[in-house]
Amino acid sequence: MGVKGEGVVTAAVLVIGDEILSGRTQDTNLNAIARYLGAYGVDVAEARVVGDEEAEIIAALDALRTRYDYVLTTGGIGPTHDDITADCVAKAFGVALEEDAEIIAAMTARFGEPPNQARRRMARIPVGGSKVINPVNGPPGFQIGNVFVLAGVPSIMRGMLQDIGHRLKTGKVVLARTVRVEGFGEGVIAAPLEAVAKAHPTLSLGSYPFFSAEGYGANLVIRGRDLEELTLTVQEVMAALEAAGVTTARLVEE
Amino acid sequence: MGVKGEGVVTAAVLVIGDEILSGRTQDTNLNAIARYLGAYGVDVAEARVVGDEEAEIIAALDALRTRYDYVLTTGGIGPTHDDITADCVAKAFGVALEEDAEIIAAMTARFGEPPNQARRRMARIPVGGSKVINPVNGPPGFQIGNVFVLAGVPSIMRGMLQDIGHRLKTGKVVLARTVRVEGFGEGVIAAPLEAVAKAHPTLSLGSYPFFSAEGYGANLVIRGRDLEELTLTVQEVMAALEAAGVTTARLVEE
Repeated sequence: MGVKGEGVVTAAVLVIGDEILSGRTQDTNLNAIARYLGAYGVDVAEARVVGDEEAEIIAALDALRTRYDYVLTTGGIGPTHDDITADCVAKAFGVALEEDAEIIAAMTARFGEPPNQARRRMARIPVGGSKVINPVNGPPGFQIGNVFVLAGVPSIMRGMLQDIGHRLKTGKVVLARTVRVEGFGEGVIAAPLEAVAKAHPTLSLGSYPFFSAEGYGANLVIRGRDLEELTLTVQEVMAALEAAGVTTARLVEE
Repeated sequence: MGVKGEGVVTAAVLVIGDEILSGRTQDTNLNAIARYLGAYGVDVAEARVVGDEEAEIIAALDALRTRYDYVLTTGGIGPTHDDITADCVAKAFGVALEEDAEIIAAMTARFGEPPNQARRRMARIPVGGSKVINPVNGPPGFQIGNVFVLAGVPSIMRGMLQDIGHRLKTGKVVLARTVRVEGFGEGVIAAPLEAVAKAHPTLSLGSYPFFSAEGYGANLVIRGRDLEELTLTVQEVMAALEAAGVTTARLVEE
């Protein structure tokens, strides 16, 4: 039920790494990317997590890059044998990987000597690609076509994101409003919410229940690209809830 | 580079919900499921996140359930209009959804009156399916074929998981050991690690760098199903690191 409309720009996120699938590491990159792209009006429409396997990475990349405006990958760009993302992206695009002289020079300056063979792997960019600045630590990511290849370490990934927004075709930003209901379950909220949702098919109306020591209820999130329609819809939701006997609905900051 | 071997049992996780893709909500269910299944020797081989869209959910479900031994879905089983997971699963399997008398009876007991139309939606199970106990709050999830349909609220999802393990064909549990290296970058670790990894193709050797105020380094995670080979490989990793001048490697608990 994503937000619809003309000129929607879409992205997919491809998280690469055995450590996410094994449960060793909790991914936070999808969330950070979704929030970052949201500010540019770019909707994350799908995400996938695959392990450090060439065939899997290439298949997912090809499925996503042909379907969405952009793909952002995270992980697998370090110097170790399990870091195969750059190789996979080059293969998917049918181009070679070439050492970038600027990256080699930066590594040489950093270490006081030319980089060893493992580090040189991180200096490779697919032919036709461009670097994505890494303002945090270590070598850059890269862009080729509609694919952005970013680090897996969250702090580095978030740093690299800052060099992406200005490259994007941007959409109309999605605005969100949250109506909080306390002391009523979703079962009571569902009918009035559905009636309003059906009248506004281009908006997204979601209901997210909560249960805590203090009580229970739901946050109703109304999302849309047109402020006027959004404001009107929030009023309609509030009115529909009140008519259904749900007396605690209030607009909250989230 | 997942752990290989005979009789590997695989699963995929399908996270359903606009709130994950919009960045409103940080998913934690994939991680919880991966850890839970890991204890049964079941490997999560892929995960996908899709929005609350029928065609997307069905396509992802069909892709995953035909490829992996099991699929676990989270989200979209509440009473509101955007909760369409049960409908999608029934369509994917080509069966009808039927109200379950036990669930209706439990709802009636809970609310002191028969459930309204919205809540009745949560009492529907695909024909041929079986309930997955919800020990936390609200109606159950369900299993049909190799697909388990669980709640999106993390506390409820984790509760439902407890009724899944005993239904699974289990694999040999993957054991993990972590060698921590401080004060050396991955660029130095890569070559010795790769040499050991190549000698043990059925094991997974991953390198996860860290950068903190206290310093930098990497955690090397060696994973395998055979304790003897795992122990031997850890010793080989330690020896290879020492031979490469990496003097701080030590086995740690994680």
